[in-house]
Amino acid sequence: MPGTLSLEELSAAVSRSAGGALKAILIGDLAQPIRGVAPLESAGPDQLSFLANPRYRRHAAATAAGVLILSAADREALFPGSDAGTRGPKAWVVCEAPYTWFAFAVRVLTPGADAQSGRADSCVVAPGARIDPGAFIGPTAVIEEGARVGAGARIGAGCYLGSGVSVGEETMLYPGVRVYAGCRIGARCIVHSGAVIGADGFGFAPFRGAWVKIPQTGVVLIGDDVEIGACTTIDRGAMGDTVIEDGVKIDNQVQIGHNCRIGEHTAIAGCVGIAGSAVIGRRCQIGGAAMIQGHISIADHCIVSGATAITRDLREAGFYTGIFPFMSNRQWERSAVLVRHLDELRERVRTLEAHLRTRPLDPDS
Amino acid sequence: MPGTLSLEELSAAVSRSAGGALKAILIGDLAQPIRGVAPLESAGPDQLSFLANPRYRRHAAATAAGVLILSAADREALFPGSDAGTRGPKAWVVCEAPYTWFAFAVRVLTPGADAQSGRADSCVVAPGARIDPGAFIGPTAVIEEGARVGAGARIGAGCYLGSGVSVGEETMLYPGVRVYAGCRIGARCIVHSGAVIGADGFGFAPFRGAWVKIPQTGVVLIGDDVEIGACTTIDRGAMGDTVIEDGVKIDNQVQIGHNCRIGEHTAIAGCVGIAGSAVIGRRCQIGGAAMIQGHISIADHCIVSGATAITRDLREAGFYTGIFPFMSNRQWERSAVLVRHLDELRERVRTLEAHLRTRPLDPDS
Amino acid sequence: MPGTLSLEELSAAVSRSAGGALKAILIGDLAQPIRGVAPLESAGPDQLSFLANPRYRRHAAATAAGVLILSAADREALFPGSDAGTRGPKAWVVCEAPYTWFAFAVRVLTPGADAQSGRADSCVVAPGARIDPGAFIGPTAVIEEGARVGAGARIGAGCYLGSGVSVGEETMLYPGVRVYAGCRIGARCIVHSGAVIGADGFGFAPFRGAWVKIPQTGVVLIGDDVEIGACTTIDRGAMGDTVIEDGVKIDNQVQIGHNCRIGEHTAIAGCVGIAGSAVIGRRCQIGGAAMIQGHISIADHCIVSGATAITRDLREAGFYTGIFPFMSNRQWERSAVLVRHLDELRERVRTLEAHLRTRPLDPDS
Repeated sequence: MPGTLSLEELSAAVSRSAGGALKAILIGDLAQPIRGVAPLESAGPDQLSFLANPRYRRHAAATAAGVLILSAADREALFPGSDAGTRGPKAWVVCEAPYTWFAFAVRVLTPGADAQSGRADSCVVAPGARIDPGAFIGPTAVIEEGARVGAGARIGAGCYLGSGVSVGEETMLYPGVRVYAGCRIGARCIVHSGAVIGADGFGFAPFRGAWVKIPQTGVVLIGDDVEIGACTTIDRGAMGDTVIEDGVKIDNQVQIGHNCRIGEHTAIAGCVGIAGSAVIGRRCQIGGAAMIQGHISIADHCIVSGATAITRDLREAGFYTGIFPFMSNRQWERSAVLVRHLDELRERVRTLEAHLRTRPLDPDS
Repeated sequence: MPGTLSLEELSAAVSRSAGGALKAILIGDLAQPIRGVAPLESAGPDQLSFLANPRYRRHAAATAAGVLILSAADREALFPGSDAGTRGPKAWVVCEAPYTWFAFAVRVLTPGADAQSGRADSCVVAPGARIDPGAFIGPTAVIEEGARVGAGARIGAGCYLGSGVSVGEETMLYPGVRVYAGCRIGARCIVHSGAVIGADGFGFAPFRGAWVKIPQTGVVLIGDDVEIGACTTIDRGAMGDTVIEDGVKIDNQVQIGHNCRIGEHTAIAGCVGIAGSAVIGRRCQIGGAAMIQGHISIADHCIVSGATAITRDLREAGFYTGIFPFMSNRQWERSAVLVRHLDELRERVRTLEAHLRTRPLDPDS
Repeated sequence: MPGTLSLEELSAAVSRSAGGALKAILIGDLAQPIRGVAPLESAGPDQLSFLANPRYRRHAAATAAGVLILSAADREALFPGSDAGTRGPKAWVVCEAPYTWFAFAVRVLTPGADAQSGRADSCVVAPGARIDPGAFIGPTAVIEEGARVGAGARIGAGCYLGSGVSVGEETMLYPGVRVYAGCRIGARCIVHSGAVIGADGFGFAPFRGAWVKIPQTGVVLIGDDVEIGACTTIDRGAMGDTVIEDGVKIDNQVQIGHNCRIGEHTAIAGCVGIAGSAVIGRRCQIGGAAMIQGHISIADHCIVSGATAITRDLREAGFYTGIFPFMSNRQWERSAVLVRHLDELRERVRTLEAHLRTRPLDPDS
C-alpha cells in the first residue's frame, strides 16, 4: 500500500481515474485517513469498505470501517438522520455505483507490481523470437521461433509460447500459461496460470466406426484488455479463427470451443462451457457453469443465469434461466418421477376438460 | 500447405487415404486448383469448403469457395439444375458424408509437423529412462527413472513423466502434460497441454468425523489413437486400473474418475465429468458438460446430450437427454415454483378425477 | 508392497493405526497371507478385497480374494451358514464400516513414497526463500523470494511458489502446481498437478460499458490435512481471504471463488463450482458438478447431490437435490415443452376446480 491517503485525496484520485464520470457525495470527516480496504466485518477505522449487495446490510450497519461507500438509499435506511461519526463510520461516500467507486479506490490504494524486465537465466528463448527489451521472461519459460513479446509484457515462470505467438504490450501471463503456435494475444491482457490458448478444437469425422481427426488450421485471436482465468482453455479454429474481442473477461475453468466469437466486454463466469462455433454478442454476462451449445448465436446484452444450458439462439437481449430447482432429496425423487410423466398428467387434465365439455354440468347453461 | 493440388489430384489422394471407402462424385472443373480450406463465408476461389450442417445452407448458397463438398440433396436444393461454374463453385464434391470427405481432404492439404528428434538442452531425463533415439524431448521436460518413450514420440516443453511411465510410438504430448508414475499411453495418441494423467482418485473413508485417504494403487492405461484435451484429468485406479480404450477422443476439461473404463471409439465432449467406476461402452457420444454418476454402466452406442446428468445405468443404445429448458428468468421463477410443487398439482388432478368418478355428471350414463 | 502380512498381523496394524476405534471380527484362517489389495473381480487368493456398495454383491459372492472385508449383514446374505474357506474367501473381516477398515488396511500394505530431500539441479530458488533442509525441491521448480517450505515437504517438478508463499511440513505438491504470492498451505496437505492456488478472483465493476478490474488483495489460506485435486483452482480473496479449513478434501477440476470459506472435513467431488463469498459448513459433502451460487451459506453436515445447483442458503443439515431427470431425447422434447408451460397446465387445473366449485355436480350435496 502506498502509505495513507485522506478520504479527500482518495476521492480526488478516484475522480481523476474515472475521468470525472463517477459522481459521489462525501459526508463526514474528509480528512479521515485511509490505509487500505477490508470487508465490512473486519474493517478497522483506517480502512475503507463498501455496501453493494443488500444481503450484507446488517454487516454494514455494524461495520467499524472508517469510511463506507454506499448508495443514498442504503445510507438512509441504515443510518437514518444520523451524521457521520456519531453512528457508524467517520465518513460516507454516497454514490449510485458503490462497487464501481470501490473498484477505482482499490486501484488507487493498491500499488502495481514492480516493473520487471529482462530474462531469467533459466528461460529458453529461440534465437528468432523477438522479445522487447522492456519485457520480462520468467525462469524456465520457453519461447519458440518467431514469437513476439511486446514492451512491458511479463511472461511468467514455466510459460510456453509456440512458434509465431504474439503477446501485446503490458500483457501479463502468470506462471504456467501455454499458448500454441500462431495465436495472438493483445495488449494489457492478463492470463492466469494453467490457461491453455490454442489447443486443437474437437473435430473428428466418423469413418468406419472410428474417428478421423480434422487438422485444426486456425488460431486464437485475443483482443486488448482481456482477462483469462486459471485453467481456462480456448481452442484454435478448425478453419478460420476463434476470436475473443476487446475487454472480454473470462473466469477460471472456462472452455471455449473452436471458432467461437465472444463479443467485446462480455463477462463469462467460472466453469462455463461454450461449444464450437457459438457466437456470443457484446456486453453479455454468462453465469457460472452455464453451457452454451455449439453453432448458436446469442444477442448483445444477454444475461444467462448460472447452471443454465442455452440450447437455441437468443435473438434478443434478456435474462435467461433454466435450472432444476433444488429441494430435499426425498421430495426430488417424487418430483423427478412427475417430470418424467408430465405428458401423462397433461393427458389427465385434457380428459377432465373433455369430460366437462361434453357432459355439461348444468343442462340449462 | 504443400503447394496446390487440382481437385482431381486431391480426390485421388482422399480416396487413397480412405482405402477407397469414401465414394464421391466430382462435378465441374476437375482441374480446379485448391490451395487450402476455409469456412463457407470467407473461402476464396482457390479454397475448399463444405456443407454438413443444414444451419449453414445460406452460407453455402453464397460461398465464393472454388470447390464445395456437399450432399446430393443439398446440391439439388441449393443449386437446382445448374452446372458447376455457372452458379456457385467451380466444382462440387457430392458425397454422402461431406464432413468425412472434408476431414480426409484437410489431412491431405495440411502438412504434418516436421519430424523432430533428440533432446533439448534444458530437459531433465533420469539416467534409467529409456528414450528412443527417434523421440523428441522438449525444453524443461522432466522424465523420471524407468520411463520409456517410443520412436517418433514428442514430449513437449515442461511435460512431466513419472517413474515407469510409458509413452508409445508417434504419440505427441503438447507442452505441460503431467503423467504420474506407472501410467501407460499407447501409440499415435495426442495429449494436449495441461492434461493430468494418473493423479490420485478421490478415495476417502469416513473415520471419526474426518476422512482417511485410501492410497490409490492402480494406474491409467490408455490405448492407441486416443486424443485427450487440454486440462483434462484422468485419475489412476484405486485398486485395478482406469482404462481408456483405443480410439477414444476426449475434449478439454473432462474429468474421469478412478477405475472408469471408456470403450473404444467413444467421443466425450468438453467439461464432462465421469465419476469413479463408471463403465462407458464403445462408440458412445457424450455431449459437453454431461455428468455421469459413479458405478453406473452405459451400453455401447449411447448418445448423451450435453448438460445431461446420467444417474442410472443405460442398458440399451439410445439418445438420452435431461436438461431443464431455459426461458426468461421471470417465467423460470414461476416454473421453478411449480416444479417444486408438482406433487400438489398431481393431487389436485387426482381430486378432480375422484370427484367426477364418485359423482357422475349424468346419472344416465 | 512391504512383503506379505498374515491377516492377524494386518488386523493388528489396522487396529493400531485406527487407535483401537475400528472393531472387526475375523473369521477363518488368521494366518492367511496377504500381499496386497485388488478389486473383487480380479483379486487372487493372496489379496484382500472389500464389499461396501450393495451394487457389487454378486462380485463378492464370486470373488477369489483370499480375505474379504464386509458387513455382518452382507456376510449372512452372501455366505449363509458357511464357514470361511469352505465357500468363498479363506477369511472374512466382518465389521460395521468395511470401507474404512479397507482404507486403513491399504495404508498398512502400501509403502509411502521414499523420503526425498534436497534440491534438484535445475530448480530455481530465490536467495531469500527459506527451504527446510529436510524438504525436497524437484527439477525446474521455481520458488520466489520470501517463500517458506517446511520439513519433509516435497515440491514437485515445475511447481511455482510465488513470493511469500508458505508450504507446511510434510505437504506434497505434485508436479506443476502453481501457488500465487502470499498464499499459505498447511501441513500434511496433498496438492495435485495443475492445481492453481491464489489466482485473482473474478472481480470487475461496470463502468461506461466496460469492466474495471478490482485488485484482489487477499490470499488463500489452506489448513492442515487438506487434499486438492488436479486442475482445481482456488482464487485469492478480493479483500480478506479465501479459507479452506483443516481436513477438507477437494477433487479434480473444482473451482472455488474468492472469499469462500469451506468448513473443516467437508468433501467436494470433481467439477464442482463454488462462486465467490459462498460459505460452506463443516463435514458437508458436495457431489460432482454441483454448483453453489455466490454469497450463500450452507449449514454443517449438508449433502448436495451431483449436478445440483444450490441457489439459496441451506439453513439446516439435509440431503438436497435438483437434477432434471434424463429420459429418451424424444420424451424429453415433449417434457421440456410441458415444463416451459407448467403455468398454463396449472391454470387449466384451476379452471376445472373453479368449474366444479361454482357448478355443483350434485345439488343435494
